[in-house]
Amino acid sequence: MTKTERTYLDWNATAPLLPAAREAVLAALDSVGNPSSVHGEGRALRMLVEAARRDVAALVDTAPAHVIFTSGATEAANLVLTPDYRMGRTPLAIGHLYVSEIEHPAIREGGRFARDAVTTIPVTRAGLVDLDALETLLAGHDKAKGLPMVAVMLANNETGIVQPVKAAAETVRRHGGLLVVDAVQAVGRVPVDMTALDADFLIVSSHKLGGPKGAGALVSRGEVLMPVPLIRGGGQEKGHRSGTENPAALAGFAAAARAAATDLAGRNARIAALRDALENGMRAATNDVVIHGADVERIANTSFFSLPGLKSETGQIAFDLEGIALSAGSACSSGKVGQSHVLVAMGFDAALGGLRVSLGPASTEADIDRFLAAFSRVVARRRAA
Amino acid sequence: MTKTERTYLDWNATAPLLPAAREAVLAALDSVGNPSSVHGEGRALRMLVEAARRDVAALVDTAPAHVIFTSGATEAANLVLTPDYRMGRTPLAIGHLYVSEIEHPAIREGGRFARDAVTTIPVTRAGLVDLDALETLLAGHDKAKGLPMVAVMLANNETGIVQPVKAAAETVRRHGGLLVVDAVQAVGRVPVDMTALDADFLIVSSHKLGGPKGAGALVSRGEVLMPVPLIRGGGQEKGHRSGTENPAALAGFAAAARAAATDLAGRNARIAALRDALENGMRAATNDVVIHGADVERIANTSFFSLPGLKSETGQIAFDLEGIALSAGSACSSGKVGQSHVLVAMGFDAALGGLRVSLGPASTEADIDRFLAAFSRVVARRRAA
Repeated sequence: MTKTERTYLDWNATAPLLPAAREAVLAALDSVGNPSSVHGEGRALRMLVEAARRDVAALVDTAPAHVIFTSGATEAANLVLTPDYRMGRTPLAIGHLYVSEIEHPAIREGGRFARDAVTTIPVTRAGLVDLDALETLLAGHDKAKGLPMVAVMLANNETGIVQPVKAAAETVRRHGGLLVVDAVQAVGRVPVDMTALDADFLIVSSHKLGGPKGAGALVSRGEVLMPVPLIRGGGQEKGHRSGTENPAALAGFAAAARAAATDLAGRNARIAALRDALENGMRAATNDVVIHGADVERIANTSFFSLPGLKSETGQIAFDLEGIALSAGSACSSGKVGQSHVLVAMGFDAALGGLRVSLGPASTEADIDRFLAAFSRVVARRRAA
Repeated sequence: MTKTERTYLDWNATAPLLPAAREAVLAALDSVGNPSSVHGEGRALRMLVEAARRDVAALVDTAPAHVIFTSGATEAANLVLTPDYRMGRTPLAIGHLYVSEIEHPAIREGGRFARDAVTTIPVTRAGLVDLDALETLLAGHDKAKGLPMVAVMLANNETGIVQPVKAAAETVRRHGGLLVVDAVQAVGRVPVDMTALDADFLIVSSHKLGGPKGAGALVSRGEVLMPVPLIRGGGQEKGHRSGTENPAALAGFAAAARAAATDLAGRNARIAALRDALENGMRAATNDVVIHGADVERIANTSFFSLPGLKSETGQIAFDLEGIALSAGSACSSGKVGQSHVLVAMGFDAALGGLRVSLGPASTEADIDRFLAAFSRVVARRRAA
């Protein structure tokens, strides 16, 4: 299975490293020192970390001081999802967490909340978080236990469906709650403006943008209301996240953030055209393919589909053997192909399962052609079976 | 301040990246995919992660299944230091944490223990954990609240003093407690054998070994008694640590682990000779230099000294201007030069402060010569002041 024969259509699992990010990683890897050291070597790396903070802040239109670097989005989620907050130095309790049913497991697991302090918000059959249900849940929230916290993702990782975060924010605000937005699949694909979204916290990831793995960030609305730290120790990141900073990963993250902020419209137009070709091609090949979320707003790069009679794990293996890397939902837990919780939440038959094609800036028409050729063969074999 | 004029003597803060680790990082960076994906790209990265696990396990003489990868040693410390354990699926409570006074802040902060559930174990003036005090503390431990947990580091990061971990383990064992050993500064410098040490958990770090930043591990004695996860989500690392694995960092960590396990005696002999030359040179230059821990067992690469009349922060800046990167204790919190908690614990005057020179495999006689030349100038200026 040589590289040249493969077609990578799994950008939502991880994006190939951008050349600019690779260069930034290498330069920082070759810089000796610890960013917390006060000598010249340490100070040079400190400057690099702070420059990365500015680039990541710019990506979501906020101030650098609002960016806390973590080892990734999952850690950021576990940092922000906690009942224990501080307003300055004063403890502030969050009483309950409400998460949309289609959140990534990093959110759905509820971080540091007890299991019984987490409630899921249903989604409509169209794949959108049910705002009426959110209203009902928050109306019934017991404030005596503390404020409500709500987590709604900006773009779903499986379907690519863009969620009504701004409307959810209005509901959350009305009930005096906090809103956490997983923007991992959204940044670089739709404009993300922290203030316009009216989110209290935003989560972003480096490797979904074409940066290296091992970096992410929790972005906060301000600096006053903050979660009790998840990782304590030397007091890095103003005490919000201890542990030696990772300048190489952060420099790569920053390079990817800069690229993501550049020519979003042009990139999206090109990627959307490829996805349209892909979806039209699938429909032409078989009239029973179901494309999830095709009627609502999606990020331009994602196509999540089901083929009656083709189990998602069988389909994924079939495409893999055809040289196509795609996913059966999210690549979350080690090599397991489970049922899609997103499809189940949308009210589809769990047994059906779905397959996700996700594209990126380097995807080409040739990729789509190879996918469609493989798709025809998979469809034909399914019919024969 | 060009690179060629600098002398890096701060290996305990972070070691320069080994060429073999650099190569391993690059190769993995260029491999597209997510190790949790089931397609060919994902499986190749999965193999790389599991190979890294074998190398890190071998470094401390244990089974690969006992290695949980984290983003670094601080995260590993926060994972292991918790009152909430499970014996299989059965909850098991740890009632109190006892940490030696000279632990790294990542340990001293106590992880997920409440502040009042953490007690420090004093050290002797020689810089060794006080085993009689440990005995007394554990004898007074209230088992009704749960088992006692004890954290004693194997080699101190500031002084390099090797701690009596085996003896501490006997005491802990006798009282039915758990022993956590921070081996971050010890691996690659003294032989570390998980079983011989009789530790329940060991913490190691990549970047102190010449691997990249952003990788560490919690090594456990077995697989049955484990802490409740710190970071929940997709269920990676058998559920003990969620979040996309970082193959590039882990491949580099593995390369550094392999190097650390190779020719330890030869490397130590060479490094010890350099340190002896350094310490003899300092003593020849001024008779009032105090070298901490010179009379007890130390790792071969570390020299921690005080010069009466020279504050550690002044000294550190003076050496930095001379082109020498060294440290005033640990590089733990962003750019702050605080008093050494290690010297205070050893009963020295806090105002005195200390300076740490730490060497590595690439250190040379020329490095020592440059340091001693600078040392003479710093000493002369101190006298003149």
